[in-house]
Amino acid sequence: MDRFIRTDLAVELKEDLDKEECLDGVSLSSYMEYGVVVSKIKVKNKAGAKLLGKPIGNYITLENKELLQADESIHEQFVQVLYNNLEEMIKDAKNILVVGLGNRDVTPDALGPYVVDNLFITRHLVQEKLIKDTKILSAISPGVMAQTGVETLYILKGICKEVKPDVIIAVDALAAREPSRLNTTIQLCDTGISPGSGVGNHRLSLNEETLGVKVIAIGVPTVISVTSIISEAMEAMVNELSTRKDKQYEMDFDEREKYDLVSRLTSPELATMFVTPKNIDESVKRISYTISEAINSFIEL
Amino acid sequence: MDRFIRTDLAVELKEDLDKEECLDGVSLSSYMEYGVVVSKIKVKNKAGAKLLGKPIGNYITLENKELLQADESIHEQFVQVLYNNLEEMIKDAKNILVVGLGNRDVTPDALGPYVVDNLFITRHLVQEKLIKDTKILSAISPGVMAQTGVETLYILKGICKEVKPDVIIAVDALAAREPSRLNTTIQLCDTGISPGSGVGNHRLSLNEETLGVKVIAIGVPTVISVTSIISEAMEAMVNELSTRKDKQYEMDFDEREKYDLVSRLTSPELATMFVTPKNIDESVKRISYTISEAINSFIEL
Amino acid sequence: MDRFIRTDLAVELKEDLDKEECLDGVSLSSYMEYGVVVSKIKVKNKAGAKLLGKPIGNYITLENKELLQADESIHEQFVQVLYNNLEEMIKDAKNILVVGLGNRDVTPDALGPYVVDNLFITRHLVQEKLIKDTKILSAISPGVMAQTGVETLYILKGICKEVKPDVIIAVDALAAREPSRLNTTIQLCDTGISPGSGVGNHRLSLNEETLGVKVIAIGVPTVISVTSIISEAMEAMVNELSTRKDKQYEMDFDEREKYDLVSRLTSPELATMFVTPKNIDESVKRISYTISEAINSFIEL
Amino acid sequence: MDRFIRTDLAVELKEDLDKEECLDGVSLSSYMEYGVVVSKIKVKNKAGAKLLGKPIGNYITLENKELLQADESIHEQFVQVLYNNLEEMIKDAKNILVVGLGNRDVTPDALGPYVVDNLFITRHLVQEKLIKDTKILSAISPGVMAQTGVETLYILKGICKEVKPDVIIAVDALAAREPSRLNTTIQLCDTGISPGSGVGNHRLSLNEETLGVKVIAIGVPTVISVTSIISEAMEAMVNELSTRKDKQYEMDFDEREKYDLVSRLTSPELATMFVTPKNIDESVKRISYTISEAINSFIEL
Repeated sequence: MDRFIRTDLAVELKEDLDKEECLDGVSLSSYMEYGVVVSKIKVKNKAGAKLLGKPIGNYITLENKELLQADESIHEQFVQVLYNNLEEMIKDAKNILVVGLGNRDVTPDALGPYVVDNLFITRHLVQEKLIKDTKILSAISPGVMAQTGVETLYILKGICKEVKPDVIIAVDALAAREPSRLNTTIQLCDTGISPGSGVGNHRLSLNEETLGVKVIAIGVPTVISVTSIISEAMEAMVNELSTRKDKQYEMDFDEREKYDLVSRLTSPELATMFVTPKNIDESVKRISYTISEAINSFIEL
Repeated sequence: MDRFIRTDLAVELKEDLDKEECLDGVSLSSYMEYGVVVSKIKVKNKAGAKLLGKPIGNYITLENKELLQADESIHEQFVQVLYNNLEEMIKDAKNILVVGLGNRDVTPDALGPYVVDNLFITRHLVQEKLIKDTKILSAISPGVMAQTGVETLYILKGICKEVKPDVIIAVDALAAREPSRLNTTIQLCDTGISPGSGVGNHRLSLNEETLGVKVIAIGVPTVISVTSIISEAMEAMVNELSTRKDKQYEMDFDEREKYDLVSRLTSPELATMFVTPKNIDESVKRISYTISEAINSFIEL
Repeated sequence: MDRFIRTDLAVELKEDLDKEECLDGVSLSSYMEYGVVVSKIKVKNKAGAKLLGKPIGNYITLENKELLQADESIHEQFVQVLYNNLEEMIKDAKNILVVGLGNRDVTPDALGPYVVDNLFITRHLVQEKLIKDTKILSAISPGVMAQTGVETLYILKGICKEVKPDVIIAVDALAAREPSRLNTTIQLCDTGISPGSGVGNHRLSLNEETLGVKVIAIGVPTVISVTSIISEAMEAMVNELSTRKDKQYEMDFDEREKYDLVSRLTSPELATMFVTPKNIDESVKRISYTISEAINSFIEL
Repeated sequence: MDRFIRTDLAVELKEDLDKEECLDGVSLSSYMEYGVVVSKIKVKNKAGAKLLGKPIGNYITLENKELLQADESIHEQFVQVLYNNLEEMIKDAKNILVVGLGNRDVTPDALGPYVVDNLFITRHLVQEKLIKDTKILSAISPGVMAQTGVETLYILKGICKEVKPDVIIAVDALAAREPSRLNTTIQLCDTGISPGSGVGNHRLSLNEETLGVKVIAIGVPTVISVTSIISEAMEAMVNELSTRKDKQYEMDFDEREKYDLVSRLTSPELATMFVTPKNIDESVKRISYTISEAINSFIEL
């Protein structure tokens, strides 16, 4: 059933695979760093990509429930861990373009623009010789199709032509399946991103192939799709019923049946809605600040 | 099962009752006015109150799917219909205090504060003799407990002591069960309100009994509770299964079992979340403007 | 003295010229339309451009003090007059790109982004064949140098390459000299714009020469520069003193002296500040909505 | 001339007095603490009050230009120094009510509401026995007259009746005369406050006399009045002229003449405007966060 539950987190997709099938295609390693749980998933080949439903590459997840708290210290730890992992991916890139994807007028989708709002931009200062010996940081929040009428990909192509970045860092809000992961998880990957996928409307992908420059994606799950909530509930109910002592059910739904059922249960209105915490506004602001700080750490003055 | 599905709309609670049981306790009449569907529910006595789960009084619902559109004309129609029904409840009250309930930092809960933001306040102008021959309009957005640490009721008691209003209009965001009703429905009632009930945390009620002045409540459903979504899904699934030709199930859940099941399926995190449309920001702003205009119509200059 | 007082309004620059010197270079005509004062300045040749300090072209000013009011009717009149004058400049252009210049986090500079927020974008709908027989509207709020590190001109070049607009409408906040003009005046011109000039930091110009497509600029004065305020005060004081009956002063400052004096009186901090009305937030929101409506009027559905 | 230049800062008013006249009425002491310049002005008696134009009491100013920077460390220093001085005034008060004065929709006036937004409110948690052994913190942002139609004083009287605070901390935006002081100075005093004075519209004062409880005021200058700018410019010009070698002027304006002149030079529109930095939005947000942290430091958990 999970196959069609919307999640953008590699770590959640991984949960659906049993160890055996992964062996040669997908590898997972986890450890603790500064109190943050770091999970590294490697999609090694086509087989792994097909299995996980994600392109070949590296997917790093940073998790700590405390991230929901206003506690400064945990945020400094995240900043450090995020910086370390970013540095590994960015390597010696000197010219960095940050792209804040999403719609700043829809709170759970505003992560990208908020991150850009807090960056310490240096490109113009370097060009005007006001500072030197630092990485060149530029940024843009292109907005979403409904606001611009233009594919994000094409807006970025033009900017890349001018800025000629060594690497792009694309920040976007994601969808998760597990409620406890909202605003407590940061996913980092080196395979690019599909703008707006976090809220369901796919756009042309942003990656090395389409933009001619490596695209690192930073994402935070801020919503759960209603489909996901309903599917989980049905799963649970099926299990519930089939384990009842008093009577025996054989709940042999196949994938297809399950899919049809959930689809029927999900009204058109519901399909356009999302599940989000009450304090989403505060959470997105705080975590966007954490991500900005990690990126700003590349600017030594 | 519906008994424990969270909805603040009398019209949705009414749907769960069969005609017979209503006969003497609850009456319903509907008609069209300026393209708006007006449903008037009257809770006539204690029996009706127990049946519907709402105090004795009048509950008016204005509905039109078009309210989701930016179309000016439909908003002018709503303003007119809302004004007409408000006038009937306000009668010849001259001194009106509007209370914008909810948390302006949580978009779906910001309806009340937004309405207050757009009011044409006259009380100070009348007192300073700058205008006359008009109704006296004052307003406050007291904020929620988590922001103030003080019960809204007690904040209002102090203000009432000073303002001595003839009537209070309390505006708040509500929860609905039916997705298509979000931001397309305005509920008006003359029985007061429980601040924050729309998002699940009950406060001391605001009504004639507690404040010594008639409290008219204007509410708009902006969210659906996750419990409601899950319950509806399970209902549907139960029906689905029991109608399957191939095998027969006897799904004889009683209320209690259903309640326990849904509770178990709803994780603590989920319980604090809500379901809301992507464009909630825009919808709440637009509808709050409609409500403000209706109230401002009482100010003849 | 006025030569160095910062104003972006052609109509204010014109006030400093005496009729004679204008004769062949600059022409002015005014009339009333729907209760809006329309002033049309035509810079006819190089001489006129030098005289007025504005490129050869047409500068149209729409003025009405009532624009400060929330009154709907006056806004509808402005929408109509603005639409009429825009149509004359746009002619039969079918593919329109709107650029919202300025910084949305600095209220008096947020006009451009606010206008874009309220546009009815059609480009993606037309491309997806969801609508047809309408003008193609796309838009972008590129942000300012301090936010992006990239010249607005270069961001737009890339977008133009993709969108291939027939005309660009660039919206920006301006600086005026006369307080009564703030948020009551809309300037329209067909000679392009210098982003951010309204708040003092010049950028590469946006015009047919730099972008290869006609650029129509819509601007609204939202601030007065402190230099302007001080200069005006000194002017007035000089007049005051020199007209005093009791004693005679010969205040023979030449331009240079005046310039030096004002410069000395203006501390570095002051130079980065601006003068703006208390209700700037509300005014900018309202007038941006008026401009959006005028542009949206080109979309017939 | 300075007598009628609008400033809310005791330290600026003090600058206009010569040492002698202060001797018995007003005392000033300054020192450095954690890199913050602390100036303590004591108005000792009626004579001093008349001289300074401020009630008898203590006025503490914390200054450091670095406060304009995003630099964390300087903010931590301010938090510490502000906390120390607050503690001295609050003494062993256990029940604290914070009042965020001003209009959150007018950026330079939003300091108070922003501070309240970031407080860690405990009153309801203590009442619900969720926490104990901590100070009781409650807060309200009552809004301004134009928004509520009710005097802030009367809104607070009602709340005090319920909350019975031992002390009130009122936070408000102020006006300064010296540009370099905007958003770099925090004024603390134990004599209460006049809401809105910072932007020119006086309200009934909030102090022990009117509220029956000690009122500590925290203010930050966020604007300069246009009158102040013009007066300063004229002052400078007068000096300029009278020191010119080439000719002699006797600029013997008396206070009255100066007042009339500035009044004439200040158009009605100008009188309602203010001078503020471009990045006011960011500055007010940052400094409000600093003040919130200092107040939150009273909550030991």
